[in-house]
Amino acid sequence: MANASKSEVNPMRNPEIDHARGPNLPGRRQVLMAGASLAVAPLLARANAGAALGQPEAAADTGPFRARAYGAANATSPLGPLQIERRAVGPDDVLLDVLYCGICHSDIHQARDEWSEWGPTAYPCVPGHEIIGRVAAVGNKVTKFKVGDIGGVACMVDSCRTCDCCRADREQNCEKTATFTYNSPDKHGTATVTYGGYSDKIVVTEHFVIRIPPGADLAATAPLLCAGITTFSPMQHWKLAGGQRVGVIGLGGLGHMAVRLAAARKADVTVFTTSPGKVKDAERLGAKEAVLWNDADAMKRLVNTFDLLISTVPEAYAMQPFINVLKPDATLVNVGAMEQLQGVTGINLVYARRSIAGSMIGGIAETQAVIDYCAARDIKADIELVRADQINQAYERVVKKDVRYRFVIDMASLEA
Amino acid sequence: MANASKSEVNPMRNPEIDHARGPNLPGRRQVLMAGASLAVAPLLARANAGAALGQPEAAADTGPFRARAYGAANATSPLGPLQIERRAVGPDDVLLDVLYCGICHSDIHQARDEWSEWGPTAYPCVPGHEIIGRVAAVGNKVTKFKVGDIGGVACMVDSCRTCDCCRADREQNCEKTATFTYNSPDKHGTATVTYGGYSDKIVVTEHFVIRIPPGADLAATAPLLCAGITTFSPMQHWKLAGGQRVGVIGLGGLGHMAVRLAAARKADVTVFTTSPGKVKDAERLGAKEAVLWNDADAMKRLVNTFDLLISTVPEAYAMQPFINVLKPDATLVNVGAMEQLQGVTGINLVYARRSIAGSMIGGIAETQAVIDYCAARDIKADIELVRADQINQAYERVVKKDVRYRFVIDMASLEA
Repeated sequence: MANASKSEVNPMRNPEIDHARGPNLPGRRQVLMAGASLAVAPLLARANAGAALGQPEAAADTGPFRARAYGAANATSPLGPLQIERRAVGPDDVLLDVLYCGICHSDIHQARDEWSEWGPTAYPCVPGHEIIGRVAAVGNKVTKFKVGDIGGVACMVDSCRTCDCCRADREQNCEKTATFTYNSPDKHGTATVTYGGYSDKIVVTEHFVIRIPPGADLAATAPLLCAGITTFSPMQHWKLAGGQRVGVIGLGGLGHMAVRLAAARKADVTVFTTSPGKVKDAERLGAKEAVLWNDADAMKRLVNTFDLLISTVPEAYAMQPFINVLKPDATLVNVGAMEQLQGVTGINLVYARRSIAGSMIGGIAETQAVIDYCAARDIKADIELVRADQINQAYERVVKKDVRYRFVIDMASLEA
Repeated sequence: MANASKSEVNPMRNPEIDHARGPNLPGRRQVLMAGASLAVAPLLARANAGAALGQPEAAADTGPFRARAYGAANATSPLGPLQIERRAVGPDDVLLDVLYCGICHSDIHQARDEWSEWGPTAYPCVPGHEIIGRVAAVGNKVTKFKVGDIGGVACMVDSCRTCDCCRADREQNCEKTATFTYNSPDKHGTATVTYGGYSDKIVVTEHFVIRIPPGADLAATAPLLCAGITTFSPMQHWKLAGGQRVGVIGLGGLGHMAVRLAAARKADVTVFTTSPGKVKDAERLGAKEAVLWNDADAMKRLVNTFDLLISTVPEAYAMQPFINVLKPDATLVNVGAMEQLQGVTGINLVYARRSIAGSMIGGIAETQAVIDYCAARDIKADIELVRADQINQAYERVVKKDVRYRFVIDMASLEA
């Protein structure tokens, strides 16, 4: 599939970013780090120097660490730089020097406390759960990673590991509630809540760190850790097959991944969008057709034709027209809207035994699976790289649907 | 299972009804019919006389017929007696002398035009889709029935028979819309819309007539044709198995059948009711536990414990507390509420990949299956027999939830 790559990133927006830095290569970060006039600079320099000398385990510092981050002080403040603490690397832990972190619409909801109904945001809030980093230290029981490897951290950093869901590789549904990457109670007590990937370092239990295959386009891979797995998982669970007809509702970060992932399965993809400007893009991404929501004729023509719908819209909307286009027994899977669903009449589910389901990210094994699946097929996100000091501007553009299709923060910019 | 029977029918409410009349026995009806001073009496007498003489085909009149019925003249009028026309018996048709007809909450919704959003009620409206009758004539191509047999008519009387759904024995989801037993456009042009079972005669295409096994308790079998199939079908589709935990929301006509049908599968049944007076009944019907909706402690204790929920409540209500008691991947199947669903938050579906589905009655083959299943296990409805002139009173009691658990009209009372 033709898709995202550096060629689609607009370097004019980020003139200071070094786009030539590839995976696993020492880059500007290390140089800057070593020269940073910070209290923690000697520690950082030591960790990096160890890696450079090929003596990773011996030289790695085990922390705890002071880390630079970008976060919100309260629900209405713009995000700004701050310092946070990362816990010491325990026997099962991996320390990542964060290279890239995607900006998910969830980050905005959480930073602005828009999900307070299900639990308030604790401040400062450091969002970010599409994290790609280079392993800078590992605990003595870690087997999956060595210093210098590339790891990813997605939406969870811990779970009970013992309940039925956890044992079924569904940590996201942990009966004791998974520890999400940000704004979850921090079991390690380093802070009140977990801090996400808008940060230069993160320490995560090995099990929750995803292996990133060699050769991956790191910045464009970051969004697979949320947008990718969130749309891949329902395709797996509802067994979307080649030749089946799938609709993707909403063409944003999640939607554009859904199109690519469904097209990779040879499904017949229709995009439903409110943005006339995205119609051509939908086709470029692999959709057979793009339909505007207000095109009543098209919606009527499509009644009873879809095997699966994946709704990526990050807020509630009147769902009825979409229920109507489901075939008998087919399902609309909502992965975006968390609030009260709107406009679903009983009769339109009852008639033809249709379903509305929810799906949330995926387990760790399935997240690894989507990363491997995409690496094997060169599937990645269309991204626009931004500096940390552009996060607020990026948030505004996400809310205005002005993103094609994922902002990714180049974490090297934190040190500028 | 201990369940409904004549012993649970309150004869005091219907002192004039002959409870001793069993299946396939000539009863008071014939006697009254033969003596009825109606314009159509000679026709009726001839048909019945033929059956009595053991020369059914030869003697059967092929109509068209004038039939007595009970119906609503408009949305606010009480139901009253009226005469309707039934079409001539075509080659594939069966004429039934209606013996019993259940009163379903849908009848009330339709008679009162409470579903006008999805199509107005045409008046006069003759409801009734839980119909048991004796075959009085058959067309020359009919193979399933002979005169004197007992047949049932459920919620549909026709469909296209050629679409994918019809060919998959899902006539209820016919792509050209099934012809429902009442208030559907009448393809035969006998009337504007179809007239249901609150009537002494009905002519229906053989395919849509269900065989009622010999020995069945006819009055208590009638409700299986809607309340039974409507709750049986989701148990089949969602594969409710012994040992699984199922919740039945609402203990009315549908709910009480759901309890019996689920208990017959050795499922562990919990009833959710708003009526404290029904708690003991739930256990008598086969439930392991009955929970009041406002018992917050119980609802909390039950979080994440159900494999399947069947919601039989005939109107929208805040569904969220019930979504929360579903296990991961489990489904709440709504078979009752047709209007806009209420109080379903995205996050509670998303978390644990839960679903809300709809299900509507079942196909003809599946309706035959539930009748046979119940006959083999002596499963029937708890009924209260009423005369036709008690229908309005029965409606009021259904709305007030004062029915244990299905009113069934003794159609012989039409002739009194």
